[in-house]
Amino acid sequence: MTTKTKQARKLIEGRPALIVIDIQKSTFIDNSEVRTIDNMPGYKERMIAARDLVDAAHDYNVPVLFIQEVHRPDRIDFGRELDGDEDIHCLEGDPRTEVAKDEMGYRKGDYIVPKRRYSAFFGTDFEILLRGLKVDTLLLCGGLTDVCVHYTFVDGHQSDYFCRVVEDCVGGSSVQAHEAALKAMEYLQTGAVQSREAVINAITSL
Amino acid sequence: MTTKTKQARKLIEGRPALIVIDIQKSTFIDNSEVRTIDNMPGYKERMIAARDLVDAAHDYNVPVLFIQEVHRPDRIDFGRELDGDEDIHCLEGDPRTEVAKDEMGYRKGDYIVPKRRYSAFFGTDFEILLRGLKVDTLLLCGGLTDVCVHYTFVDGHQSDYFCRVVEDCVGGSSVQAHEAALKAMEYLQTGAVQSREAVINAITSL
Amino acid sequence: MTTKTKQARKLIEGRPALIVIDIQKSTFIDNSEVRTIDNMPGYKERMIAARDLVDAAHDYNVPVLFIQEVHRPDRIDFGRELDGDEDIHCLEGDPRTEVAKDEMGYRKGDYIVPKRRYSAFFGTDFEILLRGLKVDTLLLCGGLTDVCVHYTFVDGHQSDYFCRVVEDCVGGSSVQAHEAALKAMEYLQTGAVQSREAVINAITSL
Amino acid sequence: MTTKTKQARKLIEGRPALIVIDIQKSTFIDNSEVRTIDNMPGYKERMIAARDLVDAAHDYNVPVLFIQEVHRPDRIDFGRELDGDEDIHCLEGDPRTEVAKDEMGYRKGDYIVPKRRYSAFFGTDFEILLRGLKVDTLLLCGGLTDVCVHYTFVDGHQSDYFCRVVEDCVGGSSVQAHEAALKAMEYLQTGAVQSREAVINAITSL
Repeated sequence: MTTKTKQARKLIEGRPALIVIDIQKSTFIDNSEVRTIDNMPGYKERMIAARDLVDAAHDYNVPVLFIQEVHRPDRIDFGRELDGDEDIHCLEGDPRTEVAKDEMGYRKGDYIVPKRRYSAFFGTDFEILLRGLKVDTLLLCGGLTDVCVHYTFVDGHQSDYFCRVVEDCVGGSSVQAHEAALKAMEYLQTGAVQSREAVINAITSL
Repeated sequence: MTTKTKQARKLIEGRPALIVIDIQKSTFIDNSEVRTIDNMPGYKERMIAARDLVDAAHDYNVPVLFIQEVHRPDRIDFGRELDGDEDIHCLEGDPRTEVAKDEMGYRKGDYIVPKRRYSAFFGTDFEILLRGLKVDTLLLCGGLTDVCVHYTFVDGHQSDYFCRVVEDCVGGSSVQAHEAALKAMEYLQTGAVQSREAVINAITSL
Repeated sequence: MTTKTKQARKLIEGRPALIVIDIQKSTFIDNSEVRTIDNMPGYKERMIAARDLVDAAHDYNVPVLFIQEVHRPDRIDFGRELDGDEDIHCLEGDPRTEVAKDEMGYRKGDYIVPKRRYSAFFGTDFEILLRGLKVDTLLLCGGLTDVCVHYTFVDGHQSDYFCRVVEDCVGGSSVQAHEAALKAMEYLQTGAVQSREAVINAITSL
Repeated sequence: MTTKTKQARKLIEGRPALIVIDIQKSTFIDNSEVRTIDNMPGYKERMIAARDLVDAAHDYNVPVLFIQEVHRPDRIDFGRELDGDEDIHCLEGDPRTEVAKDEMGYRKGDYIVPKRRYSAFFGTDFEILLRGLKVDTLLLCGGLTDVCVHYTFVDGHQSDYFCRVVEDCVGGSSVQAHEAALKAMEYLQTGAVQSREAVINAITSL
């Protein structure tokens, strides 16, 4: 691969937004060994680690968008989502489906964006919000690295956003899937994979 | 993960279409070692192997859609595509950008769908065509497994299509990326990853 | 215009769904002369008239989808909506923004689809729901005829749905705009404009 | 309607692009009285009048995008388009379907965007192009005022673009439909409807 056309990018280009993907109560109140959606070891700690990102965003006026996967209780909107490894999940009305507001430090002024699929862009008002906020760079945390984070990143990338994934604040269905997804995102945008420390530094330098 | 809600699916559910993703002349006329887009070893053979799928589709009246990544010559529409590992590629007017029609057995009645991004659904008339053809199942071949094939699969999945990927007729940027993407697709739809032999059997059994 | 290629369509083709567009409490609890969004004379009566459609749909197992225009309270998501005749409207939390559930006979099993723009398809999970319900024909009522109803019809039409508008159960910003929009919808699909009586007959004949 | 929240807008906000909608050879080489798509009296003159806009755009480095409605020759992608007043139109390969390049002064550097439906946004790479060009304001000319121009305007509006329609350089299916559509667009964005003279002045003042 030649690199003569590469333009170096900063961690944050233009205006950022922190996108907290699917950090929901199930992680905190459901301690089942066998889960409807598989989680890698240490998943919960990785979600807890995202709290510092939210606090930094709040301190530096970076918009915070909490994405919430939620399905209608009659299950009409699962589409093909039950045709693979995942089982019925995130039903509206189930306390496990709620955004983990207390744990994540949600406050008035933050946004909640419900979704029915994996990408935050698909069938939601996510991009209407990004446009209203004039966002250029998406800072992604949450889960699953290999599913909702990865596919939100891809749609962000295809829609011309600069996308960054906070590698120690995302968790996958397995360690291997998590690592493969991080590589895939780095393939799409050099410098996409960043540590929480680096991202917080970038936020505080705005 | 519990499985009590699983419904077994056939390889082909309803009406299929064969989606030949980005099998373009560059694979056949450009023998560079260093390529603008990385290819795993054996990539070209995997593209050649897709020819039998096209022939079977033709014989059994399965619509064939050739997806073609192509960028405007002034490069205005690359978006973030040059921010990662990929270099300038698939310019309109370059002979390497043409669909590999002879190699793939393209014939009148097949469709060509140009695209500017990775997913065949993104910014194209792909879904207008799928609806007109009343397609239920997408049979994917071509490349890259880990990019255009994977992300077309994801959008197909989110749009409620049954999606299958022909594992010996797709090639990735590297062996690891190829294998990780196949796992990701199988995670989304059990039975998604199929051999060419199995897919051709399913087509001939329609 | 020649008509040799025309295929006559039934009022309801395949599976229908009743789409109740933006019938919200403001129509019933806000009696202002000057409104944030203009209403033709008799607007309220036309919304009340839609109740019979909802009842018929309930009796004959036709899914009912209540579309609700609602904007985030910090007004970040109005986009260009305040650049024309319309003023700030439909803020989340304002009692006038609620779907007129009692008036319309909303019951458990009906769906509510919030939106930020005019077309029910734009930035919403509307089409995810239509696919899950396997809908072929959209029966539209509510308001404004010339804005949200018209533009939902157009997107439905472009997405290959059969679209019908119940002319005595929709109301526009003015009589002229209402009538012009009905003509525009009839131009797109012959037989699109139907009376409530005809639509209820079609529902009861399913 | 109250106006206390109105912000006055300039004719051109930020960066403009000239969008030439469906000015195709059929207008110039097909003199049929009965047309597959109805045209108001003076339609052809209104298309010819758009030439001055193209020339001005060229002189002042405003990108010019020619939208072309074109259907695949096997007619698979008409969707519901033949269910109303329109008959089979714009088939690929038919000389009448070509963009009227000579008449409109098309030159290298201009863009052609094929589409299968009415809105230039629907199932096309139109918005990928607008983003690449960093466009803020769409200047619309061409036809039909009441269909492709109107519905492109609506999607532009919903996507947060400033939209302007050049009233003497657009033509509708009838005078009444043309005038009603202009009113509808002015309703959405105050100052949307502009004369060719005013638009050219705004371009030359950039």
